[in-house]
Amino acid sequence: MEELKAIQTLIDCLSKLPSIGKKSAERLAYAMIDMDENELLDFSNAIKNLKSSIHRCSNCGMYCEGELCSICQDENRDKNTLMIVSYPKDVVAFEKSQSFNGLYHVLNGAISTSKGISFDDLNVTTLFKRLADENIKEVILATNPNVDGETTAIYLAKKLEKYNVKVTRLAYGLQMGGALDYTDALTLNKALQGRQKIGD
Amino acid sequence: MEELKAIQTLIDCLSKLPSIGKKSAERLAYAMIDMDENELLDFSNAIKNLKSSIHRCSNCGMYCEGELCSICQDENRDKNTLMIVSYPKDVVAFEKSQSFNGLYHVLNGAISTSKGISFDDLNVTTLFKRLADENIKEVILATNPNVDGETTAIYLAKKLEKYNVKVTRLAYGLQMGGALDYTDALTLNKALQGRQKIGD
Repeated sequence: MEELKAIQTLIDCLSKLPSIGKKSAERLAYAMIDMDENELLDFSNAIKNLKSSIHRCSNCGMYCEGELCSICQDENRDKNTLMIVSYPKDVVAFEKSQSFNGLYHVLNGAISTSKGISFDDLNVTTLFKRLADENIKEVILATNPNVDGETTAIYLAKKLEKYNVKVTRLAYGLQMGGALDYTDALTLNKALQGRQKIGD
Repeated sequence: MEELKAIQTLIDCLSKLPSIGKKSAERLAYAMIDMDENELLDFSNAIKNLKSSIHRCSNCGMYCEGELCSICQDENRDKNTLMIVSYPKDVVAFEKSQSFNGLYHVLNGAISTSKGISFDDLNVTTLFKRLADENIKEVILATNPNVDGETTAIYLAKKLEKYNVKVTRLAYGLQMGGALDYTDALTLNKALQGRQKIGD
């Protein structure tokens, strides 16, 4: 039996989302048929209006609705510390953790030989402009702890040498709530190397 | 930091889908921002058009685009065997398995005391009409193997006594590819009770 066209179209759309396979897409599509007509209309509109109402902050590259994002406009942030992340969702993650009060710069990607993304494809022109213009004293490299993220961090660290800033990288180690025996060898190695004196 | 309104709206919509929690909804929403504008428009339209282009087959209750579904219209199906399922997606699952060539009847739910769904809320009026009008010799009860599905099957079996049909229930047992030590006690019990002579 063929799926009905309207259902198949929706399944195809849902399948394009990350970590949604064919099976999940089917399940979601069938669940959506049972949803309220108004809920579906809201959903449809939310998707349609997504792009048109979201822009990039001209300063840091984060998503925003106006010219500048709320973080860049916030007078209470520490203007001396700049965290460089790959993606807007990384900013969201750090903001939710409430562990950082400095500014961000979103590269919008990472150097990737497999995807053909080079350093110049990243949002770096404004980064260097900010380093020249703003009073930044420390740059925290917070790219992802994977091959692409590491490559980007190393490349960036090199590029930042000529600026008078302290360059740091997020620590590696055990995940909170994790278990030693479920932690991969590389992370265990990094956790050991990065061990700290208790009381520090 | 607050999420942007357009993103938050989409996250709220995505969170309403089954098995999509807040965290997954966030991840999906951020992935969708990076999607192509046309892809998003297609997605939006697929959701908007979902309800309007899908109806219920007036005979069996399955989703269809016309008056009758393709299965009810198919002359090559075995018209003597009727499988009763709770949901349209169960029909899709069986059709994909290519293990059944009879007709279906979709109850569109199951008796549930917790959800306040009684037998009369199900799509049963046409079921009894079919049993009276069509030449059905066997009814296979294929409701889900959970409390609501079992209740429905037992109730149905009682109701079907007055019709001259053989009533059967899907077998319980081990899942193909499963492992004994990961199988729950009740299923093991059912698998044991339902054991069959090799060669049958």
